[in-house]
Amino acid sequence: MFIINGELSSTINLADRGLHYGDGLFETLEVINGKPVFLQLHLERLFRDCQRLLFPAPNSQLLTQEIALLCTHSEELKQHNVLKILITRGVGGRGYRQPQVIEPTRIIGLYPMPNYNPDYQYYGVNTRWCQLRLGINTALAGIKHLNRLEQVLARAEWDEDDIQEGLMMNARDNVIEGTMSNLFYVKDNSLYTASLNDSGIAGIMRQIVLDEAASQGLIVIVHDYCKQTVLTADEVFLTNSIIGIWPVKSIDTQVFAIGPVTRRLQALINTRKQAEYVAADF
Amino acid sequence: MFIINGELSSTINLADRGLHYGDGLFETLEVINGKPVFLQLHLERLFRDCQRLLFPAPNSQLLTQEIALLCTHSEELKQHNVLKILITRGVGGRGYRQPQVIEPTRIIGLYPMPNYNPDYQYYGVNTRWCQLRLGINTALAGIKHLNRLEQVLARAEWDEDDIQEGLMMNARDNVIEGTMSNLFYVKDNSLYTASLNDSGIAGIMRQIVLDEAASQGLIVIVHDYCKQTVLTADEVFLTNSIIGIWPVKSIDTQVFAIGPVTRRLQALINTRKQAEYVAADF
Repeated sequence: MFIINGELSSTINLADRGLHYGDGLFETLEVINGKPVFLQLHLERLFRDCQRLLFPAPNSQLLTQEIALLCTHSEELKQHNVLKILITRGVGGRGYRQPQVIEPTRIIGLYPMPNYNPDYQYYGVNTRWCQLRLGINTALAGIKHLNRLEQVLARAEWDEDDIQEGLMMNARDNVIEGTMSNLFYVKDNSLYTASLNDSGIAGIMRQIVLDEAASQGLIVIVHDYCKQTVLTADEVFLTNSIIGIWPVKSIDTQVFAIGPVTRRLQALINTRKQAEYVAADF
Repeated sequence: MFIINGELSSTINLADRGLHYGDGLFETLEVINGKPVFLQLHLERLFRDCQRLLFPAPNSQLLTQEIALLCTHSEELKQHNVLKILITRGVGGRGYRQPQVIEPTRIIGLYPMPNYNPDYQYYGVNTRWCQLRLGINTALAGIKHLNRLEQVLARAEWDEDDIQEGLMMNARDNVIEGTMSNLFYVKDNSLYTASLNDSGIAGIMRQIVLDEAASQGLIVIVHDYCKQTVLTADEVFLTNSIIGIWPVKSIDTQVFAIGPVTRRLQALINTRKQAEYVAADF
């Protein structure tokens, strides 16, 4: 079920620049009993990234109303859902030049929650290195935009059901993230993750984990690092808004223990999610 | 006017992966009196790039029939049109993983010819350097895929009507191409253009120019080069399937003469286009 520019629809104008150029961005949120979790943080990123892509952000009140409508009235509403918000530069003619007047397209859709094994949270997941290297592009780095062929091709590298995520380096051989998640590691009780100045997506759950860790007095370091560094880590974990925190129990043949920092951050995230849920307006 | 999977339509399924991930590719062709020029070369590239993106190419006969239908029956048909062929990985659920069964979406649309000043062919165009650097990505380099935010943002860097194209370097400061065209230069009677191993789109008109130049005994060199190299060139020109060859008369404040190699190649391309047109089946 989708609402597009306020109307229920299952189709979009063929002239939309989202289709022709991937000219837009998206957000993916967990919805619990009709309440989108961390909605405000997602909307803030959305509006910030619209600016970086040089198009006017959609009307915030309107968008929030439409999300509320979808999340409270959808027939597809379950205890857990995924909400996807997709904003494009709107309809335009042929050619890269943006239209004189930009009217962004607002698309919001409700999806079933993926049926991830609940064990992943507790016992961790298996991962592998992807061959495909993320491109280097400072103008687009960090943005959750619609140009996602790199992720599609990386995810096509494996088909084994017992591997839950692929880890990606960029063209400089820096470790960046998973195909659908951000990557953290712990070494000597400090928390590390990749800087995303050249490549990657600045996830909302990544931001929350960085904030929570810092507020707990953990040393947090955002830097460039290589494959060897993560292979000698004490703990490794993945984050995104749907999975929360998944401990990594293996990267290819290398095995990792699930350690105390990962467990503590999982607990903090759960507490914060609970508080968010209780405080949510709808 | 669009034909999508054989049916006249102005909309597309909201679940199409072309919209969500830019998961597809496209071709842009000149159409003269209903005949798409260099159709066979464009279809060959399309099928080759489907393979690189790991999805089954659409049925060639079916696609050709649909193109013929659009190009002979469209109400929008003029003496000159632009045909756009867009192929996506088709409809899919949420997530980067491709569906078990991929049914590519075939979209073909007829557009009016852009009203470029005819003087551009003869007197040349003004260009500028873009700030935005093309990313480095060997897996995607060369492919005319739907992830085109770099071009959109580069084209948004200027608004002056007397500048017809922006020239782009990549993250290694190699000169690659224009926002919508490939770039060539001539030095001491040899023809040069960028290798597209890291960045850029391998245009059909680029290929035709390379072929024609080689068949004429010109020395043709495809290599990596920097800004300074093109600024000391004898001649500079741009190519794409719609503009053919545009001589470059300036890059920012640097002025270029329009020389004999550019003129010779323009004549060769016109001759070849004429032959193609006469031989076309429809």
